[in-house]
Amino acid sequence: MKKVNICIIGARSLSSGCLIKLLLQHKHANIVMLVSESEAGGEDIQKVHPFLYNLFKKKTEIYNPDKIIENCDLLFLHKHHGEFFEKTANLVDLAIKEKKDIKFIDLSADFRLKDKNLYAEWYGFQHTKPELLKTSVYGLTELYREEIKKATLVANPGCYPTAILLSLTPLLKNTLVDISQTIITDALSGVSGAGKNRNGRNLAIDVEQNIIPYKIGHQHQHLSEIEQEISNMLNKKTEVTFSPHLLSFRYGILATTYVKLKKPYEWEYIYSVYEKMFENEPFIRLLNKNEYPQVKNVEGTNFCDIGFDVDKKTKMCVVMSAIDNVIKGASGQAIQNMNVMYGFDESEGLPYNEVLKKSSAI
Amino acid sequence: MKKVNICIIGARSLSSGCLIKLLLQHKHANIVMLVSESEAGGEDIQKVHPFLYNLFKKKTEIYNPDKIIENCDLLFLHKHHGEFFEKTANLVDLAIKEKKDIKFIDLSADFRLKDKNLYAEWYGFQHTKPELLKTSVYGLTELYREEIKKATLVANPGCYPTAILLSLTPLLKNTLVDISQTIITDALSGVSGAGKNRNGRNLAIDVEQNIIPYKIGHQHQHLSEIEQEISNMLNKKTEVTFSPHLLSFRYGILATTYVKLKKPYEWEYIYSVYEKMFENEPFIRLLNKNEYPQVKNVEGTNFCDIGFDVDKKTKMCVVMSAIDNVIKGASGQAIQNMNVMYGFDESEGLPYNEVLKKSSAI
Amino acid sequence: MKKVNICIIGARSLSSGCLIKLLLQHKHANIVMLVSESEAGGEDIQKVHPFLYNLFKKKTEIYNPDKIIENCDLLFLHKHHGEFFEKTANLVDLAIKEKKDIKFIDLSADFRLKDKNLYAEWYGFQHTKPELLKTSVYGLTELYREEIKKATLVANPGCYPTAILLSLTPLLKNTLVDISQTIITDALSGVSGAGKNRNGRNLAIDVEQNIIPYKIGHQHQHLSEIEQEISNMLNKKTEVTFSPHLLSFRYGILATTYVKLKKPYEWEYIYSVYEKMFENEPFIRLLNKNEYPQVKNVEGTNFCDIGFDVDKKTKMCVVMSAIDNVIKGASGQAIQNMNVMYGFDESEGLPYNEVLKKSSAI
Amino acid sequence: MKKVNICIIGARSLSSGCLIKLLLQHKHANIVMLVSESEAGGEDIQKVHPFLYNLFKKKTEIYNPDKIIENCDLLFLHKHHGEFFEKTANLVDLAIKEKKDIKFIDLSADFRLKDKNLYAEWYGFQHTKPELLKTSVYGLTELYREEIKKATLVANPGCYPTAILLSLTPLLKNTLVDISQTIITDALSGVSGAGKNRNGRNLAIDVEQNIIPYKIGHQHQHLSEIEQEISNMLNKKTEVTFSPHLLSFRYGILATTYVKLKKPYEWEYIYSVYEKMFENEPFIRLLNKNEYPQVKNVEGTNFCDIGFDVDKKTKMCVVMSAIDNVIKGASGQAIQNMNVMYGFDESEGLPYNEVLKKSSAI
Repeated sequence: MKKVNICIIGARSLSSGCLIKLLLQHKHANIVMLVSESEAGGEDIQKVHPFLYNLFKKKTEIYNPDKIIENCDLLFLHKHHGEFFEKTANLVDLAIKEKKDIKFIDLSADFRLKDKNLYAEWYGFQHTKPELLKTSVYGLTELYREEIKKATLVANPGCYPTAILLSLTPLLKNTLVDISQTIITDALSGVSGAGKNRNGRNLAIDVEQNIIPYKIGHQHQHLSEIEQEISNMLNKKTEVTFSPHLLSFRYGILATTYVKLKKPYEWEYIYSVYEKMFENEPFIRLLNKNEYPQVKNVEGTNFCDIGFDVDKKTKMCVVMSAIDNVIKGASGQAIQNMNVMYGFDESEGLPYNEVLKKSSAI
Repeated sequence: MKKVNICIIGARSLSSGCLIKLLLQHKHANIVMLVSESEAGGEDIQKVHPFLYNLFKKKTEIYNPDKIIENCDLLFLHKHHGEFFEKTANLVDLAIKEKKDIKFIDLSADFRLKDKNLYAEWYGFQHTKPELLKTSVYGLTELYREEIKKATLVANPGCYPTAILLSLTPLLKNTLVDISQTIITDALSGVSGAGKNRNGRNLAIDVEQNIIPYKIGHQHQHLSEIEQEISNMLNKKTEVTFSPHLLSFRYGILATTYVKLKKPYEWEYIYSVYEKMFENEPFIRLLNKNEYPQVKNVEGTNFCDIGFDVDKKTKMCVVMSAIDNVIKGASGQAIQNMNVMYGFDESEGLPYNEVLKKSSAI
Repeated sequence: MKKVNICIIGARSLSSGCLIKLLLQHKHANIVMLVSESEAGGEDIQKVHPFLYNLFKKKTEIYNPDKIIENCDLLFLHKHHGEFFEKTANLVDLAIKEKKDIKFIDLSADFRLKDKNLYAEWYGFQHTKPELLKTSVYGLTELYREEIKKATLVANPGCYPTAILLSLTPLLKNTLVDISQTIITDALSGVSGAGKNRNGRNLAIDVEQNIIPYKIGHQHQHLSEIEQEISNMLNKKTEVTFSPHLLSFRYGILATTYVKLKKPYEWEYIYSVYEKMFENEPFIRLLNKNEYPQVKNVEGTNFCDIGFDVDKKTKMCVVMSAIDNVIKGASGQAIQNMNVMYGFDESEGLPYNEVLKKSSAI
Repeated sequence: MKKVNICIIGARSLSSGCLIKLLLQHKHANIVMLVSESEAGGEDIQKVHPFLYNLFKKKTEIYNPDKIIENCDLLFLHKHHGEFFEKTANLVDLAIKEKKDIKFIDLSADFRLKDKNLYAEWYGFQHTKPELLKTSVYGLTELYREEIKKATLVANPGCYPTAILLSLTPLLKNTLVDISQTIITDALSGVSGAGKNRNGRNLAIDVEQNIIPYKIGHQHQHLSEIEQEISNMLNKKTEVTFSPHLLSFRYGILATTYVKLKKPYEWEYIYSVYEKMFENEPFIRLLNKNEYPQVKNVEGTNFCDIGFDVDKKTKMCVVMSAIDNVIKGASGQAIQNMNVMYGFDESEGLPYNEVLKKSSAI
């Protein structure tokens, strides 16, 4: 059986822990290197992610590009934005130079945006590798599957954009939305969204029994990719109003998006539009009338559950989507992209894969 | 010192527990009767609300209108909507007949709506006492203080409407909103919103680590009072899109409302409009730029914290407000109304009353 | 590939939902019948357990013993104690009569106790099938694996007993405990322990931000099986002090047990005793010195993590164990027992099975 | 009305926030100085403790002993153990030198232990002010009220010791306990126990849906004061086994303590012993048979709720106590001690003070 030799860069991060957990069950995955600089390497990964106790014994090592290129077929990159993009570009170059067919899945924001100026605007750094922005593929699997198949570097989407874009695409691509009214999206994230960051707003005493709105209106960096993709679909530069909130649950995002429809469509018509676009998607679950997505139904899975309501009087459509932010919003989607890149079954290594394989076989 | 003899009808409810707790500290309150029919009366109230242990020893009793009229000056009514409005009307009549000056604060929805047909539409019952709908006063204290002073029957607002209406009033009354774009409000409530109801969606296993959207779009019964009040302010029948969500914290509501402004106003201008309207309000706290309300800062208090963001490019204004749903959204506002009705210090019996008295004295 | 035709009785229960979820990924499992009487049958199981949406389409049906015996090889029984034991016994008889080799895994308490009088004492009903108590096997896999291999009816242990007994067995079987001092066990359970019961203490408003001690001392029904097994190990009727608590997390039990050691043993010696007993156990993870089990590390798995501390001065040994109460404490252990009964890989269908198979192959 | 001029040292800490909140409602309290060095002073206290928004406007200032001595009557000290004890001692000396009657309530551990060597053993620092250890009074109000009345320096107890010692005192002082069996105490604390410490185990992602046992057996520093006080009561050096746990709720401790009674006493007899000792205590609430303390019933109050179970067969007594760790376990008890030191009503400034005054007046 074909085995892919995998290196994970940034192996101490919260979502790398989840990635390792999933890859351990992946038939074609062989984790050969774990890179981490934050503790000078040499750490037992079981101590970092204690749920891996007795399941996976490997030490982290410091970054050594030659060793990586020599030993690995696929890299997952889990670094903070702006921190590693030059090294990533160098690794891509080195692989070409060494004539090795190495693939990259970057979970940071470093290659998601096509316009390099957006990095200065939204992330506060100058992006000096614009040529790689051209060839990288935005890894929202359901939208870019064909491009991902051929990609060398996949830029895995942010968690909020995954939930929001998947839920809006059928309406936007089918030009059902009256864009004279600003698109509004209100999203709720669990504490895992901030990873293990100790400097943010994710101290238990701050979050517990609380709701923390942050970067309200037009401030959150994920707007850059949300607006890039929506503008692409609409062929028109579009600004979105976005309200993210932090809540004291662990895993999940619920996004609620408000759009005005061009006409007072029936709920059933809108449903048929969604169904047509997503009917063969293994990880999109479309809910029935008066059913709404709940994060507990997607927790621990790679599903994106979508439900919506239409008010014919006001023509307002409320679209809701729920994902597990660490799986579909990060590590799971990264594995889904890996599966697409290598031609594996798209659900391999992901929760419910046996069930999903059976249904796709039917 | 003047003492008001109080009867609480529906004394077993969650917010009656909170009401009793607050009234015990109120200088002018004397709880003389606790009425509950659900267990045939005769229950020790300490067993029902165990935080009252050793603090308040009284048994519930069954409903006896003559005894109530004879012994009480003020009634708080905490019954399920549609269940008690005829009895309430009869009590009002009986008091008139007996020439007793009795006041009523009804925490149910039974007297909030001025149009009796809305009861059939939103609450599913025929309201047979429309004359009392005319004289009852909607008890959003900050908006109807003068009317409340003279009222016999105050209809205490719902929790969601309290948070939403307080946060929108300055914009609407000052005609700053472009009402061609539908007003959207997205609100998050803690589990106390459902009281002790065992048949709903408030089982711990359902709510824990979850977000439950419900009655999405134009379905929640609180829209009736939200739209009544907004339509009054705008002099125009107005429909609002509303998304309520249930979350696994105990106390609080965070409401986020999206309106389009008529012009690209500066944040500072909008602030000045709010400040002018609320500067003497003891229970409204207006937040600075880039500060947003959090439920933990209002939990256990009668405050409504309000913050907002303005995006000049899209003219979208995101207004956020946080309240403790059981206090400002129910029992606390009821006491605030009691204080207004009797001419007591408006913060008497409410958290931080000593501090608030000092500041109002300055 | 061998397929086992499975019937689940009590398919609406919380842990049946988990059982179905796990069985869907089990290579040899074929769920052919879902029995539920509570809603007169005919319910779409996806509506009952909404995380199964799009994954498993089957309706519940009413209890029909002949149909079950005709179509099924294995029954999982998830009924409330005392409710179904006579029917279970009749099914066992019917299978014998029909000469069908049918196996039973009962997740209720109905066949855990060997002394029928204990049912009257602890569960309040007369057990009229004492002969089946003799042949049923207590399904604590690690202790009774050989008996389970040959069993027709396995009585799956309670959640608390699973955590407590696994953590104590090495000490007791090796006679290291001074039993002149009462064994004390203090355990914390998530809200899933009460399933979907609406009449208990698992309303969100009661549990949230709270700890609820219940049935303190010598009152909890699980003591009957804990004391039965401990008495067996010690060859002496033994009474245990037990304090269960309900907390507002979803899945998991942490049990902390206090025993006095006969001698001031070194930590390392005690560790070696545990290691010897559990070294080949796929689902027991023994922690290092100064490491303690945490429920989040076992959540969603069939592991039992065990750690302990020894105070040589007082000879007190504090043993801690953590399990997922719905998996190792119910459905997961049931599948582990199924695997033992049928000679399948013991981790088949259980989380991390690919990893565990690899390690056992080494 | 007599006003006490108060200085709070360590004003940014979580429990200083709570202290300020309570003192704002205290009739005799006048907060004149807030000292904090961590941000070089000059911070608006409302930004540090945002629930104080609009309620209290004062800036922190750096430590200036002369200014403190000149302006203040009472100091609350909220510093990390070992950090400030020399400065505290110098302030005491300076007050004597200046002939000012200044009182000190230290919420750190620095003056709780009578044996200076215990500081090296449990806290890792040499205590160089042993003379002040002699005159300081351990501020467990219910045990040392008479000494506190005359004290200059009160050492406010730790949160765990408050809950544990209050619940054990009646049994120990009445020599009902068989001390041949080790006393075991198992306690659960909310995340506020760690304050705002960013380096510990109180990140939301670590705590949420988890239970974290820590310092198990004979390791937690609070054992030093627990054992000091128990040894005093028993006139015998006594070692206790202690298991603290961290849980994801905010406020509260539930302590469960296991002692063997000398004889198989009736529950009612034990109750009478507790009642006799605590009948006039405003903040101790003794629960009835089969009622157990819950943290939600004491949250936000200065109460210590105590309940217990007796098993006559094993003679085991399980004693449970619940407190709000930040109030009765820190700031509230500090105010209770202030009230005792100044002869104010003991409940002044504490929740339910009006109710408690009324009952004590009866």
